[in-house]
Amino acid sequence: MKPAPNSLDPAPSLVFGAHPDDIEFGCGEVIARETRAGRKAHFVVCSQGEAGTHGTSRQRLAEARNAASILGATIEFLKLDGDAHLSARPAHAIKLAEIFRRIRPRVALAPSVVENQHPDHACLGKLVRDAARLARYGGLKELRQLPPHAMEQLFFYAVTPEAEPAGVTPVLIDISAPEIMAAWTAAMAAHTSQVTARNYVELQLARARLLGLRAGTGQATALFPNEPLLLGSLAEAGRGARRF
Amino acid sequence: MKPAPNSLDPAPSLVFGAHPDDIEFGCGEVIARETRAGRKAHFVVCSQGEAGTHGTSRQRLAEARNAASILGATIEFLKLDGDAHLSARPAHAIKLAEIFRRIRPRVALAPSVVENQHPDHACLGKLVRDAARLARYGGLKELRQLPPHAMEQLFFYAVTPEAEPAGVTPVLIDISAPEIMAAWTAAMAAHTSQVTARNYVELQLARARLLGLRAGTGQATALFPNEPLLLGSLAEAGRGARRF
Amino acid sequence: MKPAPNSLDPAPSLVFGAHPDDIEFGCGEVIARETRAGRKAHFVVCSQGEAGTHGTSRQRLAEARNAASILGATIEFLKLDGDAHLSARPAHAIKLAEIFRRIRPRVALAPSVVENQHPDHACLGKLVRDAARLARYGGLKELRQLPPHAMEQLFFYAVTPEAEPAGVTPVLIDISAPEIMAAWTAAMAAHTSQVTARNYVELQLARARLLGLRAGTGQATALFPNEPLLLGSLAEAGRGARRF
Amino acid sequence: MKPAPNSLDPAPSLVFGAHPDDIEFGCGEVIARETRAGRKAHFVVCSQGEAGTHGTSRQRLAEARNAASILGATIEFLKLDGDAHLSARPAHAIKLAEIFRRIRPRVALAPSVVENQHPDHACLGKLVRDAARLARYGGLKELRQLPPHAMEQLFFYAVTPEAEPAGVTPVLIDISAPEIMAAWTAAMAAHTSQVTARNYVELQLARARLLGLRAGTGQATALFPNEPLLLGSLAEAGRGARRF
Amino acid sequence: MKPAPNSLDPAPSLVFGAHPDDIEFGCGEVIARETRAGRKAHFVVCSQGEAGTHGTSRQRLAEARNAASILGATIEFLKLDGDAHLSARPAHAIKLAEIFRRIRPRVALAPSVVENQHPDHACLGKLVRDAARLARYGGLKELRQLPPHAMEQLFFYAVTPEAEPAGVTPVLIDISAPEIMAAWTAAMAAHTSQVTARNYVELQLARARLLGLRAGTGQATALFPNEPLLLGSLAEAGRGARRF
Amino acid sequence: MKPAPNSLDPAPSLVFGAHPDDIEFGCGEVIARETRAGRKAHFVVCSQGEAGTHGTSRQRLAEARNAASILGATIEFLKLDGDAHLSARPAHAIKLAEIFRRIRPRVALAPSVVENQHPDHACLGKLVRDAARLARYGGLKELRQLPPHAMEQLFFYAVTPEAEPAGVTPVLIDISAPEIMAAWTAAMAAHTSQVTARNYVELQLARARLLGLRAGTGQATALFPNEPLLLGSLAEAGRGARRF
Repeated sequence: MKPAPNSLDPAPSLVFGAHPDDIEFGCGEVIARETRAGRKAHFVVCSQGEAGTHGTSRQRLAEARNAASILGATIEFLKLDGDAHLSARPAHAIKLAEIFRRIRPRVALAPSVVENQHPDHACLGKLVRDAARLARYGGLKELRQLPPHAMEQLFFYAVTPEAEPAGVTPVLIDISAPEIMAAWTAAMAAHTSQVTARNYVELQLARARLLGLRAGTGQATALFPNEPLLLGSLAEAGRGARRF
Repeated sequence: MKPAPNSLDPAPSLVFGAHPDDIEFGCGEVIARETRAGRKAHFVVCSQGEAGTHGTSRQRLAEARNAASILGATIEFLKLDGDAHLSARPAHAIKLAEIFRRIRPRVALAPSVVENQHPDHACLGKLVRDAARLARYGGLKELRQLPPHAMEQLFFYAVTPEAEPAGVTPVLIDISAPEIMAAWTAAMAAHTSQVTARNYVELQLARARLLGLRAGTGQATALFPNEPLLLGSLAEAGRGARRF
Repeated sequence: MKPAPNSLDPAPSLVFGAHPDDIEFGCGEVIARETRAGRKAHFVVCSQGEAGTHGTSRQRLAEARNAASILGATIEFLKLDGDAHLSARPAHAIKLAEIFRRIRPRVALAPSVVENQHPDHACLGKLVRDAARLARYGGLKELRQLPPHAMEQLFFYAVTPEAEPAGVTPVLIDISAPEIMAAWTAAMAAHTSQVTARNYVELQLARARLLGLRAGTGQATALFPNEPLLLGSLAEAGRGARRF
Repeated sequence: MKPAPNSLDPAPSLVFGAHPDDIEFGCGEVIARETRAGRKAHFVVCSQGEAGTHGTSRQRLAEARNAASILGATIEFLKLDGDAHLSARPAHAIKLAEIFRRIRPRVALAPSVVENQHPDHACLGKLVRDAARLARYGGLKELRQLPPHAMEQLFFYAVTPEAEPAGVTPVLIDISAPEIMAAWTAAMAAHTSQVTARNYVELQLARARLLGLRAGTGQATALFPNEPLLLGSLAEAGRGARRF
Repeated sequence: MKPAPNSLDPAPSLVFGAHPDDIEFGCGEVIARETRAGRKAHFVVCSQGEAGTHGTSRQRLAEARNAASILGATIEFLKLDGDAHLSARPAHAIKLAEIFRRIRPRVALAPSVVENQHPDHACLGKLVRDAARLARYGGLKELRQLPPHAMEQLFFYAVTPEAEPAGVTPVLIDISAPEIMAAWTAAMAAHTSQVTARNYVELQLARARLLGLRAGTGQATALFPNEPLLLGSLAEAGRGARRF
Repeated sequence: MKPAPNSLDPAPSLVFGAHPDDIEFGCGEVIARETRAGRKAHFVVCSQGEAGTHGTSRQRLAEARNAASILGATIEFLKLDGDAHLSARPAHAIKLAEIFRRIRPRVALAPSVVENQHPDHACLGKLVRDAARLARYGGLKELRQLPPHAMEQLFFYAVTPEAEPAGVTPVLIDISAPEIMAAWTAAMAAHTSQVTARNYVELQLARARLLGLRAGTGQATALFPNEPLLLGSLAEAGRGARRF
């Protein structure tokens, strides 16, 4: 059997979510694509979702573990200020930077920093952006036990359409393969306490289908790069995402 | 000798310039990168530069042919309205669409559509954008002799920094390889009538070096995609362009 | 039977399309909503769609008449420069202004002026915007046979998602009523020559459903006002379009 | 029989101000319009204005009570961090969310989140935006004693022209009626300690007149909606705000 | 008597208007300020205003001459396509470039290029911007009888508030001196055929007063520079325009 | 000998930096220009740079003192939260406002508020912006020992190109004079611990040369004004910054 491309690359993707279901709804499909290709992913969930209308903390953590496992990712839970209480303190950014140094990812994903959404999402996006930078600074006392780490790229994902940042050209990822769509749908459905109350899954599938139709493929996801992409040549730039 | 990657790909890059030296100053380095990798490029120059302060038409066409040859590209000259007289008529867009159908490129490059620059540049950028679309429409009578053609992507280049469009995240191309820089510099210098009067070459080299320093490489060029990039996975997204 | 609100208002909506199917795909649902409430609508189609890949002019005009009838609108065809040949000449704007003076609408709809779409769409949007203004100027010789007319508002519609203008807050129209959705779907399907080749209908239905889910209703359409709305009080401002 | 929507509607507008005079100067005219139509309004003032150059806390609270009474609104004072000391802590947002649950408004108004103004204004705008969202979340321990509440819309007002957000299309409210203008002017003048030192009243009247002239009416106020407006049909969209 | 600063400078300001009253309403106050300081200004009016609702061509040209004389400027009339018929042809830009070479201004003023205003205004703004550039190109055959000319700066003015470009930081000019305000008001009033029908003068005075209040002076005007300002030091940057 | 312009003006420029080298790299050249003209400048450095990869606190403070002396500026160090730990607390803004009241500058300079850079830079930019405002408020208890102070303008500088704010037209300062360039280069080189590890100096010199080439001068620096400039007439607006 032919090995998947890059399958020997030990540098995982590092994915942050403010609540137990943010990652699955916001970029689970991208992670499914990565893990099916033999690349690793690690999730960091920064609250227990205890302020939500539905589901106990215990249920929600179990759902998150189940969903991560469906997507083929490892998962850890981080205690910051609690659901709906997150604030953008430098001490949190340093805690997240420690995770960067421990996991040593090639790429990180975080909720977008658009402010007009759940305040925890934007706050976490900012903390991750700062953490990605602080992970490189050699003099930070709190982090001296781990060597500095410089990632290659930070992408933002949008849990809902409102969180898509204006003024940043997205990169679209093709997620049309049936096994990707199936894994993603299952991972979203694993958040039973959430999906029975609202039609979140339909929202995400409609977004992915609409982007796919625009891009001339089945389904696609928009990610928002924190920095311009540096490519080796035009040949690496893929194709433009429009067919209509 | 090992063949260059994609060397069997017959689909060239198609590059448009309003004046004989626009392509070399605006994106010659990107083309040098392509042709050194064994991929083809074709230039379409849409005036003879006869309104410029320096150089006769005859000189300037000879300089353009020489520069294209240094970059390894083929070249043709197209008569539209003349230098400093270009206007955005649909008939011109259809003429350009015919070139798309004849050359059948994978990727096209054109000057940006930012209006606060030489009016011919912005005008040509708009004509190329429209042409890329019209090339796909089956019912256009003027084009019936050639089958429709759908490209993969259109990139805009900026002849000067002012022409860089705000609100579009660029894609950076690494052009640090010494042979790329040498070919580009030689192709710019081939426009003898222009470079003796003003320090255009220094401007372009300073831009490329500044972008390279930002991106953590030697030199880089910014291209502005007309559509978001559609990629197959995170692994294809390259790395983010920041080191400072 | 209770008369529909405003049913005595003789001022119709005036809707412009560059090609025979633009109105139906771009804002047919909004018109269905108007005509079901007893308000009139009039369509002006500015080419025969003869540059498209599918369908003859004859077929396409018949499809447009059929679709307009399904939506309950009257229709006329205007000859300007022909499909894929439209240019933004003042003489065209004056021709359109004459239609404003003849139909005397309360509200007009036109394709958006975003340039990175079919060039005829943006061009027509600009012509309509200018025409709406010129219709008010008393001294225009070409229009002296008809009294000046000042409309209340111009809305832009986006034939495809790419045509949605950034930087303008849209107004969402709730189109969830089953009879609206049925009339709209039928009107789109009436463009047989187009819908068999590409999945345009699915694209529009996915857009409408996605907006509906965001707004906490079934389906919705985004229109882009040319001017801020002037309301009599907060009570007229409806509700904000977000539920997630 | 179910009462018609809004006719007996006890749901008030809820208006937040950082200092004792912000509401009157920023949107007092809109509130005058509401209360003259028999709809209720409630003010929440989040400091005593003690850092201002003029007026003691005691004076300023008395002025605010007087002004609220002129506008026909009820008023309460909330202690957060004090004038010029406000910071955007989640605990504050939760306190404000409690007020949303207690007052249960249809619409809320808050100072805009534009940062280049008095820091308390932007900070309060962000807190109110987050509070409007948190008021809906069922699991927030601090708020369990009150049932969740979902408003219909949040509008931002601009205390000064600099606070008007770019990139958001405003909604204009017609405030030309003489009794509205009189009530507003009186409410501003009630802040005696402030208006004697600077020409704040003239600034606001000039803004309202300029907007009125642009919109073809006497005076108008710009409000900035947090979400697009969802309307039932074109007929509800009012008219566009331009006459020149 | 002390000579006014720069009074020996023979390079005038060159001001373009699409209609006989555009210059006076849009930037007459700035010109009054220049000519009172002994610097010259020259107006170029590009139509006779014959499409307007009020005033004959003959009346309007007389009013324009009168207004220019009140402002201390010379004036000429240029025939392009006629009122409400202006289009952005390169041949027009070259005609305007010829005027640049003849008048040889230090600074030029033109209506802004914002499209959502009278179409002639935006069109003329674009033509002037292109003309300012073409005036420098030595090879333009149509202009060979006059030596090339490079200006120092192009400013856009906004005839109405809607024409103010977003995304460009304006430069404010202090016009509070009573003799400036008097000359400007008289020059506007000289357009008798226009000011009796609508309250244009009040609109402009309200704009100037509002800007003055914001900037901590009496009255001010916003101009929009086509290029960033190049200054010799911080000491030349004047003061920031905010007092509230 | 003729005194330098404004040399009797005792109001210094007040310049803030988050780390010991930010001022030199971000705007040292502008300060060199000021002090060579006999105007004073005072630096406030808000951390010891202890989180950086290179250099001890002791070294870095010595380097900063040396660099300030090369630039002819006085310097003080302020303890806030420490390097990479700065947060935007109102108490910090009030501390900075106290410095404004003590130094009483005409102009202040601070790092830009663009968030996608070192978090301390953006945070300090916001604190300075707020402080400049708070310095004017008479009622602030913490500041009562010093009389209120209103500056004339706040400029932001960008330590790296990424920190340049979009949507603000910069003001360019001509720094081409050889003695300015020499002083600046020496001041940057004085940060020995930093410049040996990375090519920061080359980055800054490339930026300044690129801007100079664009502006038709030797070297230039972009500053981003917090408020529009208020000028007395067109004659004060300098020239536009473009030659290509």
